Amino acid sequence: MSSGKTRASPARRDAAAGRGARRRLETRSRLVRAARELMARKGIGATSIQEITDTADVGFGSFYNHFTSKEAIAEAVMEEAIESFGDAADQLAKTIDDPAEVLAASVRHAVTRASADEAWGWFLVRTALARGGGLGRGLGKRLARDIGIGARRHRFKMDDPLATTMAAGGAILAMIAGRLQGELAADAPERAATVVLKLLGVPAREASQIAHRPLPPITVSRDLELATFTHGG
Amino acid sequence: MSSGKTRASPARRDAAAGRGARRRLETRSRLVRAARELMARKGIGATSIQEITDTADVGFGSFYNHFTSKEAIAEAVMEEAIESFGDAADQLAKTIDDPAEVLAASVRHAVTRASADEAWGWFLVRTALARGGGLGRGLGKRLARDIGIGARRHRFKMDDPLATTMAAGGAILAMIAGRLQGELAADAPERAATVVLKLLGVPAREASQIAHRPLPPITVSRDLELATFTHGG
Repeated sequence: MSSGKTRASPARRDAAAGRGARRRLETRSRLVRAARELMARKGIGATSIQEITDTADVGFGSFYNHFTSKEAIAEAVMEEAIESFGDAADQLAKTIDDPAEVLAASVRHAVTRASADEAWGWFLVRTALARGGGLGRGLGKRLARDIGIGARRHRFKMDDPLATTMAAGGAILAMIAGRLQGELAADAPERAATVVLKLLGVPAREASQIAHRPLPPITVSRDLELATFTHGG
Repeated sequence: MSSGKTRASPARRDAAAGRGARRRLETRSRLVRAARELMARKGIGATSIQEITDTADVGFGSFYNHFTSKEAIAEAVMEEAIESFGDAADQLAKTIDDPAEVLAASVRHAVTRASADEAWGWFLVRTALARGGGLGRGLGKRLARDIGIGARRHRFKMDDPLATTMAAGGAILAMIAGRLQGELAADAPERAATVVLKLLGVPAREASQIAHRPLPPITVSRDLELATFTHGG
């Protein structure tokens, strides 16, 4: 008894399902890329869903298979920008041995990036402590990993590692918000890094020295587009 | 030449304007009180604007002179709940001499309150670092004041008081979020207070001792109603 033409074998069905899922992801990714380019050029307000689907070369209706609204895709664009930044910071971290220096570099780059791209900064502040955020994902997860490495190597000294790691994350966000509100000036990245290192048990003077070392640059893919994200309408 | 009957004197006009402003505030406050009672009993979702204006004994249309939506008045209700808490914590603070103990008590009460009333906790986490929040208002302003008192009395030791105060605020919010997400357990209030005192330069052992002293209660007006705020629809 053959499986016939109308009934695919399990293996074939799996392959088809795999293709479907892959195609779905590709479409989503095309939509996000189109939205990123348009929103970077024109701002979120002036970008329409129609333009996004046209640019992505996707049917208008398919948009709603992936996103409920323009705001939802804008969130996806920002989330991707946070991830790109995290990946770039991870690349830099691989070139640095001292966990304290790794952490200082990440904090300084995050505060600098937030000042240069306010939409990115506010998005981070708004989402990182929200339900489903925290130390389980995104930059919070990376922060927990980097603090954990420093703790295991006895570079950081904390009586309560979990609460202290949460506190470090919140402290960084608060200093980013302070920078965005103009309460901290251009030296905010170094000040933030110093405070965080002290919180992790690095002696004050050493913390400040590490936070003021020459900062190696990071290369975030698509940085150029996102830098103009806030300037649009 | 008399000012006539149709033209009020400047003094009379001022008095009338004062009455108008006062009446406006009274109406707003009646609406917020009605919303608080209804939302506490039934939840935000099941409360209608019509019921709020009926309960407040105010014309339906007047609602929109004060709030743009039901969500806007719900925010006002939460903001008032944060203020009530802050006032109650201030009352307790007056009875304590040591600035470190004042701060520990405030942090412990805030984390406890957030666990008992999740809507309150999430509202605080969501708004305290947002644009217009920070150390300039609400609990942030009180935190800055209390840390400032401790710094002037040399109880707290910070090289960078502004950045450290911001960091303390963010640290408290992150630990509240961690508690709300179930990542920190019932001892979260004491752990949060310990971490914050250490951040402010109190030696580790002393910080932990202070954070575990018997905690005097605070009395928040209208606490009872708000405790049920989350349970409604």
